[in-house]
Amino acid sequence: MRKLYVIGIGAGDPDQVTMQAVKAMRRAEAFFVIGKGAEKQELVDVRTAILREYVDGQHRVLEIADPPRDRAPADYTGVVQDWHDRRAVLLEEAFEQVDGDGAILVWGDPALYDSTLRMVERVLDRGRVRFDYEVIPGVTSVAALAAAHRVVLHRIGEPVHITTGRKLREEGLGPGSTVVMLDGECSFTEVPGDDIHIWWGAYLGMPDEILIEGNLREVEKSILERRARARAEKGWIMDVYLLRSE
Amino acid sequence: MRKLYVIGIGAGDPDQVTMQAVKAMRRAEAFFVIGKGAEKQELVDVRTAILREYVDGQHRVLEIADPPRDRAPADYTGVVQDWHDRRAVLLEEAFEQVDGDGAILVWGDPALYDSTLRMVERVLDRGRVRFDYEVIPGVTSVAALAAAHRVVLHRIGEPVHITTGRKLREEGLGPGSTVVMLDGECSFTEVPGDDIHIWWGAYLGMPDEILIEGNLREVEKSILERRARARAEKGWIMDVYLLRSE
Ligand SMILES: C[S@@+](CC[C@H](N)C(=O)[O-])C[C@H]1O[C@@H](n2cnc3c(N)ncnc32)[C@H](O)[C@@H]1O
Ligand SMILES: C[S@@+](CC[C@H](N)C(=O)[O-])C[C@H]1O[C@@H](n2cnc3c(N)ncnc32)[C@H](O)[C@@H]1O
Repeated sequence: MRKLYVIGIGAGDPDQVTMQAVKAMRRAEAFFVIGKGAEKQELVDVRTAILREYVDGQHRVLEIADPPRDRAPADYTGVVQDWHDRRAVLLEEAFEQVDGDGAILVWGDPALYDSTLRMVERVLDRGRVRFDYEVIPGVTSVAALAAAHRVVLHRIGEPVHITTGRKLREEGLGPGSTVVMLDGECSFTEVPGDDIHIWWGAYLGMPDEILIEGNLREVEKSILERRARARAEKGWIMDVYLLRSE
Repeated sequence: MRKLYVIGIGAGDPDQVTMQAVKAMRRAEAFFVIGKGAEKQELVDVRTAILREYVDGQHRVLEIADPPRDRAPADYTGVVQDWHDRRAVLLEEAFEQVDGDGAILVWGDPALYDSTLRMVERVLDRGRVRFDYEVIPGVTSVAALAAAHRVVLHRIGEPVHITTGRKLREEGLGPGSTVVMLDGECSFTEVPGDDIHIWWGAYLGMPDEILIEGNLREVEKSILERRARARAEKGWIMDVYLLRSE
């Protein structure tokens, strides 16, 4: 039975790749790269750096174009699911062109706000290509954020809540510590209170890494400014932050 | 300025170590091993395997005995803090015996339910040894659990709540998905409801790995039995699980 490896590669620093990931990559004949066209060159560069430095030898790279998608739909879940379906068909077609094992490299860890596993399950459900698949865990951007700030995520005995910008706006802070991902709208400005601390990081592990930390009310303006400037200069941004009462 | 590396090594499989971790280990002259006496031999073996396979050359290993600690105190936070203080003094004394850089290998990721960083901050606050320190993120047991079950932690757009067995008993499930760590008491049996799914894993990434998954009410008895048996046979257990409504 052929194998498909879904491999977490860490969240920005190519050296965040694990030995387990490197060993799996060395077994793959083909790498499926999803949505490369839409991707930022720096993200592609991280993958290229890993393959060049740790995986020598021959391998094919098959690109899977990302089908277009409504980015601000009314029916969020429905639109996302339809998009996953269309991607599954494309992955299936690509895997049919390969004889040996395949691999998909996933940013961070495949279990955290990533849709690759759902897509792979859909391909299996369709039943046209048969394969076994294995997931290799990776370092998340959450761990990368905490390491860069040298901060512990939890308060002693307290929970850690990981959420999205959208949910932060709808539901506010979780109990304990709250980590916010996928926030294009600086939702931290809508969190009330004068005693909240923020640890913010953008482009973590990459050459342009930015870190800002402090009382939320005191530093939120500089985060907004720094973020807007970096985004304008580079054309894209990826950021994550931890919030906790002081 | 000397450096102390606090290095996440992954949660069981020695190959979960990152290249970044390996590079930092190779720079260290001495490794501080905290609480080795009290530790399970298998956990020590994972560290030894990493050092043997990926870090050749000479290095010193300095053991730091774990001060005794009340495991079920009334004042949980106070007792834990006092224990951290006593460990800080021991780390300070060990670091004074070393000339070059030091390293502490931390299970999983240093930011998640681990007290090493708090101990290092205490040593710096005491001001007797001066050093700079760097944190290397690692693969968490949460990512290892999800990978072993090939499951995604979040539901589309929903949060992921990471908590302890104690908090699960006190506060119940979080919104979205809930991951429970540090649960010596099988607190999942106290979660009400017939529509909860559980993904449970013990000794993840290790030779004795056990995985059980299913409707909570249907599988909770087999988890209890399997867990009790494994624990009796090996003398210890380490488990983590994900809960989510079906
Ligand atoms: C689609 S999610 C993927 C998360 C990934 N699977 C992980 O484990 O971190 C993308 C979000 O992750 C966060 N992120 C990922 N890499 C990052 C980095 N290098 N710096 C800052 N944030 C990052 C951002 O919040 C971004 O919106
Ligand atoms: C003190 S915490 C340390 C967590 C670690 N820093 C991490 O990132 O996973 C120990 C808890 O982690 C979980 N854990 C760690 N390694 C595990 C493994 N290999 N299998 C199952 N659970 C594990 C268990 O819930 C255990 O009680």
